[in-house]
Amino acid sequence: MNALSTDLYQLTMAAGYVQAGKTGDIATFELFVRHFPFNRNYLIAAGLEQVVDYLLNLRFTGEEIGYLRGLSQFKRAPSEFFEYLARFRFTGDLFAVPEGTPVFPGEPLLTVRAPLVEAQIPETYLLATAGFQSMIATKAARIVEAARGKSVVEFGTRRAHSPEAGVFAGRAAYIGGCQGTSNTESGYRFGIPVFGTAAHSWVQSFPSESQAFEQLQKLLGEAAVYLIDTYDSLQGARTAASLGRPIWGVRLDSGNMRELAPAVRGILDAAGLRDAKIMATGDLDEYKILELIANDVPIDSFGVGTALATSSDAPNLSAVYKIVEIASNGEKRYTAKFSPDKNTMPGAKQVFRFADRDVIGCQGECMPLPRGADEPEVLLRPIIVKGELLEPLPDVHQARKHCREALKPFPSLVKTLFTRENAWRVEYSRELAKLWGGLQSARDFSPAPMELP
Amino acid sequence: MNALSTDLYQLTMAAGYVQAGKTGDIATFELFVRHFPFNRNYLIAAGLEQVVDYLLNLRFTGEEIGYLRGLSQFKRAPSEFFEYLARFRFTGDLFAVPEGTPVFPGEPLLTVRAPLVEAQIPETYLLATAGFQSMIATKAARIVEAARGKSVVEFGTRRAHSPEAGVFAGRAAYIGGCQGTSNTESGYRFGIPVFGTAAHSWVQSFPSESQAFEQLQKLLGEAAVYLIDTYDSLQGARTAASLGRPIWGVRLDSGNMRELAPAVRGILDAAGLRDAKIMATGDLDEYKILELIANDVPIDSFGVGTALATSSDAPNLSAVYKIVEIASNGEKRYTAKFSPDKNTMPGAKQVFRFADRDVIGCQGECMPLPRGADEPEVLLRPIIVKGELLEPLPDVHQARKHCREALKPFPSLVKTLFTRENAWRVEYSRELAKLWGGLQSARDFSPAPMELP
Repeated sequence: MNALSTDLYQLTMAAGYVQAGKTGDIATFELFVRHFPFNRNYLIAAGLEQVVDYLLNLRFTGEEIGYLRGLSQFKRAPSEFFEYLARFRFTGDLFAVPEGTPVFPGEPLLTVRAPLVEAQIPETYLLATAGFQSMIATKAARIVEAARGKSVVEFGTRRAHSPEAGVFAGRAAYIGGCQGTSNTESGYRFGIPVFGTAAHSWVQSFPSESQAFEQLQKLLGEAAVYLIDTYDSLQGARTAASLGRPIWGVRLDSGNMRELAPAVRGILDAAGLRDAKIMATGDLDEYKILELIANDVPIDSFGVGTALATSSDAPNLSAVYKIVEIASNGEKRYTAKFSPDKNTMPGAKQVFRFADRDVIGCQGECMPLPRGADEPEVLLRPIIVKGELLEPLPDVHQARKHCREALKPFPSLVKTLFTRENAWRVEYSRELAKLWGGLQSARDFSPAPMELP
Repeated sequence: MNALSTDLYQLTMAAGYVQAGKTGDIATFELFVRHFPFNRNYLIAAGLEQVVDYLLNLRFTGEEIGYLRGLSQFKRAPSEFFEYLARFRFTGDLFAVPEGTPVFPGEPLLTVRAPLVEAQIPETYLLATAGFQSMIATKAARIVEAARGKSVVEFGTRRAHSPEAGVFAGRAAYIGGCQGTSNTESGYRFGIPVFGTAAHSWVQSFPSESQAFEQLQKLLGEAAVYLIDTYDSLQGARTAASLGRPIWGVRLDSGNMRELAPAVRGILDAAGLRDAKIMATGDLDEYKILELIANDVPIDSFGVGTALATSSDAPNLSAVYKIVEIASNGEKRYTAKFSPDKNTMPGAKQVFRFADRDVIGCQGECMPLPRGADEPEVLLRPIIVKGELLEPLPDVHQARKHCREALKPFPSLVKTLFTRENAWRVEYSRELAKLWGGLQSARDFSPAPMELP
């Protein structure tokens, strides 16, 4: 666990909080996404397991503290600050939406309530973890939606933003609905199914394509997938077909899939290999898959790399982590930010999911129910209480199942691959609106009245 | 070092190479970028230190090998394969372009020559490392170019694709010309200057903005940067100015910089704080900085986050790692890939940089020189020979200096932020063209003659 994997300002603020005698203040921070990226109507929450792992194991080594001591920014910092870091433990609470849950703009994915410094330092790591994995799980869910039941495998590690990003991309893509990943470490660490057979270099390393295919059949048997486009895709398909069984299928990685796939299908069928599959790879994304599906192109499985592991049409999520309450000396104060376009709602929140809408209310608020209506689902659950994990988290298989089931009841307007305004109704509760209104009117330097964000 | 941080197919191929008795084959692979992303005329090579670290330390643990043994893909793999992995060491050669060097399409950044399996397994990790860091170093160089000498600091860890991506983004951005990073781990691990003072939550955690600013001044003195937009930027500027010295300056994080910055400058100047600086942050990129610079907006320093750490306008680099030669039983064979749009040039290469152009030639080729012409710079240098590092690599400070100096002589047509076709002349040498031509004519199933890629 790299305790220094955070923005320096989290640590200068921590030093300042120690200096100001605010280490006893209890702060509540929420992690949420204000505006959703291009074409996204929902997000799939992911990354909680790594968030929990980080909070429970965050420690500062003597060497790390020594490094900080030597920085000019800490030359006035009180020595109590370095002692504080040496005994740092996360002793607070974490509430979170379960991994695999669809969420909407403004809904907290995580709530941290802890002594001010303990809640502040994790900001950067939590954003980079929950933000990235949620972005990838969302992209995966979109691609799986486009593939209409055909299998999708994540193949993007090589284009991921560093090797570790590839490991977590594999994890998040699985939660979002992929069948598995090519990332072996993702498989090893999380038990995710792993896929992969051979690359062009395999074919090129043999004097001929047919020798390369024969050797692959010997190694993989009924799992053999022949990559047929190293030299010429149709010739490659004929070579693969001539080997007969055992075979899983062939992989097309370039060229016009709409013409190649039916031709390859014909070659396989003519050789009596009707059950041999065609996998497509090569710069695919949900939009290209949509076109292939719409045109009934005979492809059985999609391998998606770059677009998935980097969420290439929306490569970042404007997730934020904002303080919403602070209690000093037993007195609670609600906080909000009023900068234009970046304002935030005060107070710790809960998300109530009804059959036809979500209501963002105050934590602990009782939702008034119309007569006979079902109780809403409450999205934010306690995960860590006073620094202790309440119970083991669901594993990736459970999170993936939860994602599939949680998405199911949403209308197609939400699941479409294109932006629909107000695809899902999200309201603020009266209690939350009142809190916000009170804070608004208490500001004496507001340049203009502000609307509910 | 996670040996399993690779695509599964690297390992199935490795098993196949062992099975086929090809572990003695010596392969040469090259890592290069075929087509440059949006608006990029050059790339800055980066990530070599991590590539070297990986190659020299790649080992498979018993537990990792046990995991592979249990996968269905390896049920036919010979037991020699698992023994091979247990004693795996990289014993080959690595040639590389020094970090910070500008490169152009098709020019290898790295060349690996090693026994086939040793060269194959690293593919995924090398691409994710050198690809990502080169992408970020390039983005940084563009932003620094736009800022025309004003300082640029990397602030994007929270939006990076996982925390580790943030650490390497900080490193690569520094090589590309940033003054430093907010990522404390980047500072700790690589000695990069780190920056950061306080966030909105700092301001919000105090009952008033002025109390928050006073406390910050007490902590940071002449390094104090007041974030002034939590409630109202001009009021925040007045509060900061009223505190007088010591002060570094103020930070604007939202609103219209073109109106706010001059107004804030006026407030600081009126308070006699002419040397107090204005830093701008908040969704900046090279294009927005260009507009601010073009309009002489009084901003002294730029903090760039999301756009830099995710290279948001071009969030992936189509870097590839291709086999170009293979020697089996002492017989060398050149290899190339002929799939449409994805073809590759055969043979191990060298890049010769002349004053007015680059020539991609064969490794070891002697460039004919016009009378009196200067010797070209040779870009690919030996780094690892027979598994041993030749000499310590330049550190990040040297790489950053090299980047600045290496970019300097290039014409503005190369350094513009917008795509210019043929901004820099890159030619293939006659010897390389001959090699390619020979391979072309030797193919008996070529559907059509192909042009030099």
